[in-house]
Amino acid sequence: MTFQEKLDRIVKKNSSLVCVGLDSNVEKIPGKNSQFLFNKSIIEATNDLVCSYKLNTAFYESIGYDGIKFLKMTCDYLRTKYPEIPIIIDAKRGDVGSTNQGYVQFVFTYLGSDAVTVNPYLGEEAIRPFLKEKDKGIIILCRTSNKGAGEFQDLKVGKTPIYKIVAENVSRKWNKNKNCLLVIGATYHDELKEVRKIVGSDMTFLVPGIGAQGGDLRATLKAGLNKKGSGLIINSSRGIIFAQNPRNEAEKLREQINRFRISK
Amino acid sequence: MTFQEKLDRIVKKNSSLVCVGLDSNVEKIPGKNSQFLFNKSIIEATNDLVCSYKLNTAFYESIGYDGIKFLKMTCDYLRTKYPEIPIIIDAKRGDVGSTNQGYVQFVFTYLGSDAVTVNPYLGEEAIRPFLKEKDKGIIILCRTSNKGAGEFQDLKVGKTPIYKIVAENVSRKWNKNKNCLLVIGATYHDELKEVRKIVGSDMTFLVPGIGAQGGDLRATLKAGLNKKGSGLIINSSRGIIFAQNPRNEAEKLREQINRFRISK
Repeated sequence: MTFQEKLDRIVKKNSSLVCVGLDSNVEKIPGKNSQFLFNKSIIEATNDLVCSYKLNTAFYESIGYDGIKFLKMTCDYLRTKYPEIPIIIDAKRGDVGSTNQGYVQFVFTYLGSDAVTVNPYLGEEAIRPFLKEKDKGIIILCRTSNKGAGEFQDLKVGKTPIYKIVAENVSRKWNKNKNCLLVIGATYHDELKEVRKIVGSDMTFLVPGIGAQGGDLRATLKAGLNKKGSGLIINSSRGIIFAQNPRNEAEKLREQINRFRISK
Repeated sequence: MTFQEKLDRIVKKNSSLVCVGLDSNVEKIPGKNSQFLFNKSIIEATNDLVCSYKLNTAFYESIGYDGIKFLKMTCDYLRTKYPEIPIIIDAKRGDVGSTNQGYVQFVFTYLGSDAVTVNPYLGEEAIRPFLKEKDKGIIILCRTSNKGAGEFQDLKVGKTPIYKIVAENVSRKWNKNKNCLLVIGATYHDELKEVRKIVGSDMTFLVPGIGAQGGDLRATLKAGLNKKGSGLIINSSRGIIFAQNPRNEAEKLREQINRFRISK
């Protein structure tokens, strides 16, 4: 089963485009829980409300090999208990060709995840070890959610900004195995709309930036939903996992999204 | 002491611009040695011939938790036994602002390294948690050594290719703490020359691509050495660590470089 097929099934089953980002910063985890126990509690509270979980490696690497252990334990737990829910490793990796094989082994063989985020700066030729993984989702940074994203991403080649060239190249050249997705921040819904025009209806976008980063949900959905009312993975991390009641926040976000999907 | 000061001292002490890349691919390590024991044997054979060691995280992450342990053990060993030799973590990381703090903790607090490679695609605003580390070397990808590097790096904004804009921005805006370096592949010595013109004599370049990747050493030195006959960290990985006699290969590379430095 491909990543997209797995995603489509859970989107339908859970009626959800919500991805919960397990950005389990050790300085913010309440009590004396490990990152794994904290993640487990979030997963138990939200697994029927999500279309995926996203784990950002920075929060686990920060404490070294214990963090890598907790990252793996979380992936193992998800694969065993909720095998129908895709796991996204937000690693933003990218090295020269053969070196990437190490990252491929880390995210897909060792962690057993379903998708990974990668950085496009080195070009398709470098990223091939990822792209060859037909059944995995390869999620390429296109327009990132941060304030200063435009420093290079908005530079224009002729009349076309770099982020659009990334979208074009991924859509036309990188996506031979139909396993490419793009990252586009909710903080940039105009750019999201432009990219949807470029890549068409079939490609799914991973959209961070809702919640703590201030992205506009309604504008994001309007700009990015495809004809089937899907094609987006809407990530929320801090806004859900560190809330008083994570389940309530996940449910609220799911409902806000679904209300818009139906009205459309 | 800053990274540059530490580097200058060891360059002088060991008369060397050679960086040995500990790309300790578990599939290529001879015998039954762990990555740590393999690294230790390379370090023991070469420590008086180098200006730094570079550890690429991909080769350690590939085996998960154990690899991170061996990566840390190698850094601990170097810091204890050869504290004068800078450790470069080739991680090519880059995420949105605060998330990078996790990577900063990983490479500088946990591993105790002296420098890290980062990807510029998200812009300076995102990379600030790295740039704030005044005494560390922040090595930004400019022109990577891979064949397909030009897909985005050669795109022209007006008349200026992106890799030059990265060099300009780093030199003029990112380098407030004088802790920035650039990565430029030895496979692109013309580009190296152009970047040296842009950033001037003071900035050091980390240059991979000599050896297995086919970069031309003479042309690289001619294009990149600064007025003092330094300003380059010439990395060789596979060509040294998997050679019959790593010490001989490191020594040969050091001599080839020094012959050129003196003649210049």
